[in-house]
Amino acid sequence: MEKLLTKLDEVYDEIVQIRRYLHQYPELSFQETKTANYIAVYHEKLGHEVRTGVGGNGVVAYLKGDKPGPTVALRADFDALPIQEQTDVPFKSVNDGVMHACGHDGHTASLLGLAKVLNSMKSEIEGTVVFIHQHAEELPPGGAISMIEDGCLEGVDVIFGTHLQAQQPLGEIGYRVGPLQAAPDRFDIVIQGKGGHGAAPHETKDSIVIGGQLIGNLQQIVSRRVDPLESAVVSVCNFEAKNPYNVIADTAKLTGTVRTFKEEIRHFIEKEIERVVKGTCLVSDANYEYTYTRGYPTTVNHKEETEFVAELAKSVPGVESVRETEPIMGGEDFSYYLQKVKGTFFFTGARNPEWETAYPHHHPKFDLDERALLIAAKVLGAATLQYMRNGVKAEVSAEA
Amino acid sequence: MEKLLTKLDEVYDEIVQIRRYLHQYPELSFQETKTANYIAVYHEKLGHEVRTGVGGNGVVAYLKGDKPGPTVALRADFDALPIQEQTDVPFKSVNDGVMHACGHDGHTASLLGLAKVLNSMKSEIEGTVVFIHQHAEELPPGGAISMIEDGCLEGVDVIFGTHLQAQQPLGEIGYRVGPLQAAPDRFDIVIQGKGGHGAAPHETKDSIVIGGQLIGNLQQIVSRRVDPLESAVVSVCNFEAKNPYNVIADTAKLTGTVRTFKEEIRHFIEKEIERVVKGTCLVSDANYEYTYTRGYPTTVNHKEETEFVAELAKSVPGVESVRETEPIMGGEDFSYYLQKVKGTFFFTGARNPEWETAYPHHHPKFDLDERALLIAAKVLGAATLQYMRNGVKAEVSAEA
Amino acid sequence: MEKLLTKLDEVYDEIVQIRRYLHQYPELSFQETKTANYIAVYHEKLGHEVRTGVGGNGVVAYLKGDKPGPTVALRADFDALPIQEQTDVPFKSVNDGVMHACGHDGHTASLLGLAKVLNSMKSEIEGTVVFIHQHAEELPPGGAISMIEDGCLEGVDVIFGTHLQAQQPLGEIGYRVGPLQAAPDRFDIVIQGKGGHGAAPHETKDSIVIGGQLIGNLQQIVSRRVDPLESAVVSVCNFEAKNPYNVIADTAKLTGTVRTFKEEIRHFIEKEIERVVKGTCLVSDANYEYTYTRGYPTTVNHKEETEFVAELAKSVPGVESVRETEPIMGGEDFSYYLQKVKGTFFFTGARNPEWETAYPHHHPKFDLDERALLIAAKVLGAATLQYMRNGVKAEVSAEA
Amino acid sequence: MEKLLTKLDEVYDEIVQIRRYLHQYPELSFQETKTANYIAVYHEKLGHEVRTGVGGNGVVAYLKGDKPGPTVALRADFDALPIQEQTDVPFKSVNDGVMHACGHDGHTASLLGLAKVLNSMKSEIEGTVVFIHQHAEELPPGGAISMIEDGCLEGVDVIFGTHLQAQQPLGEIGYRVGPLQAAPDRFDIVIQGKGGHGAAPHETKDSIVIGGQLIGNLQQIVSRRVDPLESAVVSVCNFEAKNPYNVIADTAKLTGTVRTFKEEIRHFIEKEIERVVKGTCLVSDANYEYTYTRGYPTTVNHKEETEFVAELAKSVPGVESVRETEPIMGGEDFSYYLQKVKGTFFFTGARNPEWETAYPHHHPKFDLDERALLIAAKVLGAATLQYMRNGVKAEVSAEA
Repeated sequence: MEKLLTKLDEVYDEIVQIRRYLHQYPELSFQETKTANYIAVYHEKLGHEVRTGVGGNGVVAYLKGDKPGPTVALRADFDALPIQEQTDVPFKSVNDGVMHACGHDGHTASLLGLAKVLNSMKSEIEGTVVFIHQHAEELPPGGAISMIEDGCLEGVDVIFGTHLQAQQPLGEIGYRVGPLQAAPDRFDIVIQGKGGHGAAPHETKDSIVIGGQLIGNLQQIVSRRVDPLESAVVSVCNFEAKNPYNVIADTAKLTGTVRTFKEEIRHFIEKEIERVVKGTCLVSDANYEYTYTRGYPTTVNHKEETEFVAELAKSVPGVESVRETEPIMGGEDFSYYLQKVKGTFFFTGARNPEWETAYPHHHPKFDLDERALLIAAKVLGAATLQYMRNGVKAEVSAEA
Repeated sequence: MEKLLTKLDEVYDEIVQIRRYLHQYPELSFQETKTANYIAVYHEKLGHEVRTGVGGNGVVAYLKGDKPGPTVALRADFDALPIQEQTDVPFKSVNDGVMHACGHDGHTASLLGLAKVLNSMKSEIEGTVVFIHQHAEELPPGGAISMIEDGCLEGVDVIFGTHLQAQQPLGEIGYRVGPLQAAPDRFDIVIQGKGGHGAAPHETKDSIVIGGQLIGNLQQIVSRRVDPLESAVVSVCNFEAKNPYNVIADTAKLTGTVRTFKEEIRHFIEKEIERVVKGTCLVSDANYEYTYTRGYPTTVNHKEETEFVAELAKSVPGVESVRETEPIMGGEDFSYYLQKVKGTFFFTGARNPEWETAYPHHHPKFDLDERALLIAAKVLGAATLQYMRNGVKAEVSAEA
Repeated sequence: MEKLLTKLDEVYDEIVQIRRYLHQYPELSFQETKTANYIAVYHEKLGHEVRTGVGGNGVVAYLKGDKPGPTVALRADFDALPIQEQTDVPFKSVNDGVMHACGHDGHTASLLGLAKVLNSMKSEIEGTVVFIHQHAEELPPGGAISMIEDGCLEGVDVIFGTHLQAQQPLGEIGYRVGPLQAAPDRFDIVIQGKGGHGAAPHETKDSIVIGGQLIGNLQQIVSRRVDPLESAVVSVCNFEAKNPYNVIADTAKLTGTVRTFKEEIRHFIEKEIERVVKGTCLVSDANYEYTYTRGYPTTVNHKEETEFVAELAKSVPGVESVRETEPIMGGEDFSYYLQKVKGTFFFTGARNPEWETAYPHHHPKFDLDERALLIAAKVLGAATLQYMRNGVKAEVSAEA
Repeated sequence: MEKLLTKLDEVYDEIVQIRRYLHQYPELSFQETKTANYIAVYHEKLGHEVRTGVGGNGVVAYLKGDKPGPTVALRADFDALPIQEQTDVPFKSVNDGVMHACGHDGHTASLLGLAKVLNSMKSEIEGTVVFIHQHAEELPPGGAISMIEDGCLEGVDVIFGTHLQAQQPLGEIGYRVGPLQAAPDRFDIVIQGKGGHGAAPHETKDSIVIGGQLIGNLQQIVSRRVDPLESAVVSVCNFEAKNPYNVIADTAKLTGTVRTFKEEIRHFIEKEIERVVKGTCLVSDANYEYTYTRGYPTTVNHKEETEFVAELAKSVPGVESVRETEPIMGGEDFSYYLQKVKGTFFFTGARNPEWETAYPHHHPKFDLDERALLIAAKVLGAATLQYMRNGVKAEVSAEA
């Protein structure tokens, strides 16, 4: 264990380099072929058995320890977002309109660094490590489900994963037994009004006006229709009605997301949005199309594995605080792995204590404190070795 | 006069061909170089003196009659709109996202046909005809102002122009002394909220929600703040907030148009929009940018010239009704010509009597009854010859 | 005529006293029994034949001149409004929640003063003067229609009436041939949601939220659905949803007015409101009741009688300007008289030139410059005498 | 204990009679003098020492058992709501606009019946019972705080209270350690626009339109500004803008409630409402007044006393289920007692199993299954006797 931590300190510079390289060349979900290749080559150089094209652009690498033992999967995702980066970092994205604004570059760099270290300790490894490099976490249906179908969990006993959190302080590890992340659904609405000249509104059905009313009306689902003791989010994130300045919109397209933890509320909101759309369009005698697409399921952590990691994390250098975290409204397709095998998904704080502002994930100015990548690697590495030795047994905490 | 009408009947097929050709190859305002070339070549073949590149892409051709007399300008515009055509006509636009959805193809074809006929009557022409082929009528600052600065009205005594109207019946000529078309202004609003993850609205300032409220609030300018006895339009025509389905909008861009006939109301609305934007942004603690760009002035027809054309039109074959038209909210940069020289701008009905629906101008399914092109040519041609002989004198109507 | 004007000057103080008395004791439409009695007694004291209870609280008095001639009706209304007066005048309303905020006190005082003067000139009067003191102008169906049914126009050849206008300068007379005042309709909407505890919105259908959306949505009728070249008003004037601070509204009542000049737009808006209500209620799965009550017809002045008064007014002392007025959106049940007999309704400016602010009619701080009452009496008196002598003939203007 | 339960069964009919009597004669908060008198007389007849006028209309009665022991307070509130009853029960409220729509009639009847029974067991009572009949629970500042200041908790060791819940099934007892009920605050907003004639909106600042926008904008506080993982309610419950159908509103008054569990969110919403009001009024250049009045604190149950009652309730006849309840958004000034002495507040289900619909509290059709009154009396009575004997010790449950 000591050795693991020391060696990780030694590869920290490389982890940072990898992260910055990936940050500079981000690729959108389902299009991340160069990143996948980069990852595969890295593992191949280490001498790992590598499967590429797993369930799409997924990459799975295997490190068989010299000693027998369980199979531990570690997962990092590597896709980026369609956001135009607005930071001033020297390794700013060179791909227009694409940005690693959620930290997946960090997840990948951290896991590659850990892979290198574990590889160097091969003789001591008591089991097999499966490095699951997952594509397309940001865009449902996501990469997890197809990678699982393509066998990435075969033989796996337990899975661990983490998400770097730019708004939680560096040094903090967050865990939660049970529901950790919400079900992130998507809705698409097309308002079909009637276009025409901007000077003659009475000859049209103004799709932008209808869309404006719709956005307002949708607020009442959370503010009035859902039990205030339950958590739910309805966000319209995209509104498209591009026209010349003097042409009234024929159509408007609205896309957004719904977040819930409970199936009954999820179902209720799906129906309720349609009623709101229908009524709002009736006001102006317009038509609509409405599609509701279910995203990932709720991410539900297993109790013993979660408590195991939480306890173990307390003894990892750099970790200053391990605390039970509130569930979060964001979704994660890590949920699919947890439906198949035991495991846990935890949060690694990545907010630089000197920052006045920590931009939220998916923000054009999002950034990470890179020291968090080292902490993530250490917790994942320690969990791997510890689990191989003792499983999730309590003596772990005694040792710590 | 008889000869003029007969000859125009003979070139009708060619007028239609020209219109269909132009329809198929529409070009956006200020980019209409091929169309300009087409026009210039046509006049050159007729032997007219041609000036190209007048104030931009404008083309001016001169037909000097063999007899002395006044200089009559006829104007046709030739730019198209950024609209994706949705008609099924065989001569549908081949330029993606560009369409002659306002009839300028017809204006140009009609004037070229008339030019050919007048050219053939050169020996009888008592004066000079100036064919003003204007680019960029659809997009302020428009082509008229720069063509005037570049001398297109030099020596001109009177100017006539018409607009084909798809919603007025074929056979109808509409005229109006005084204000005919509104001042068409443009506004641009950028809402600067704070983007973020769609699951965490409380960490953002949701620009789409703000935009939705703004659209609603802007309605009250016309419904509550402007005297109901006055005419005014405020239309938001463009709303851009393109984001992934799960990223809350950092900014939203709204563009639209204001139409007024009176300066005081124009000024009031310009100020009032800003107040509405300011208050709406304050609700969510967001910022904004607001730009108001004045478009063309109100189009004001001269009394004698207007009555002259109205009277004369009654005797033109194909014209079944000449009626005083209501002013319209759409703008026209013909207004600039009328600020410099006497003249009138009139409407030529182009709605096929058998159509169940006549799509409004600027609609993706806009179409014309092409017989209106012949009527337009006849009225313009008759006005030209008549004016050359007698000016706007009353005996005109006697003769008719 | 000279005598008339002089005598009116002499009764001016009494006119003012009457007006202030009436102002102090205002009565609501259809409840104005004391005011009616006051008027009847006044005429009885002058020795006029008086009919009371005409079509309700209406009073009609007859002055038969000693000479034969036509019958001229003069009309003044005398009801007040359900408004709590907020002025500081010494003759402020003593009736809580009731106020002469539209000048009917002035109309009545002016007509009573004129009656006294005409009575004193009885020997010179060439015809009959019918003083129509009408109740209930403010509240449809209004008093005019029932007074007409009850015979108040019997034998009448012409009718004149005026409205004091607090926002037009003292000394101005406004006239208009044709449509002068709009058709003032009323709508009543009851939103039936589902009440409940303020802390549990999800168990309710919040009628106040629905009502708020409805108010917003109704704005689009004028801003988007009615031709901007036409005049129309849709105002929600009353919103009742009175509840404890912690009880969500079971119902909300909205009442308002629609003003139009054209039947087709009137009809369109009546239907359109219902669609807006229906769609808005559908958004929240609520029910509604909707009633649309047509008010008075458009007030249409007769051409010759209007031009007669306009011309004659120019020579009346105190009148500084006679100008064609724009039509106004407010309704008037004078419209019914004009459907039966010839006549005109004109405006008498009553804004004190020294006021910085002239509060609009129906405002709690509404006030008049009382000198306008004298001007009104003079114009009506002059019109009466002149009409009796010459009818509406042109020599009138010559004489003036 | 057996005796207690049997005797309570015997007074059940009387409890129902009392409840129906109180239901018929409801009195508003702070005006409940007759009810207070009724209660005082009842206790006096039992021979209890009675203090009236405690902190207002509060009544406190004391039953001193013949044996020494602790002092147990039991609290029932007795004010009614300003709601017009719409039920068809024979004991329907005879006081117009006032209704026991929250079950306080039941609380009081239940406690009086229990008082009678405990009084009859005086010789066995090991301590003192303090019957706290509290006025004005529905209207902050509420009666509790002033009754406490007036000494009602003097010498009290523990306090118990319950609320009948029409939406929880008969036979269910709900408990919760820690926060049970939210802090219920109140806000008052006056929009000061500018009134005027309904036909001339441009001369006004339409307070109803502003109010409508405000209601909509306030929704975003919960839907967009508060963390979706936290609970908060913002309800506008009262909207007053009463005007004639043709007079545009000069002012509009909005009153509502805010519910929160956390101080930081409470504070945030208080500030946020003001920003929303300010921005919304700026849109129309109107003014406003805003007052935020803090209501009761969060009701926080003590752990041992809560678990004591929960455990004990399981053995009470009629109780079919004891379950941990979710916190509720409604407030309770029982919170003040719990700030001073140990105790717990629990819920007693009162929904008749045969009802298709159970109307929510504060609904005009609210009703209770009266058998719940007996259950409430039994649980409170059992808790009193048990506590006197053993305090909250665990052997209680063993005994049960």
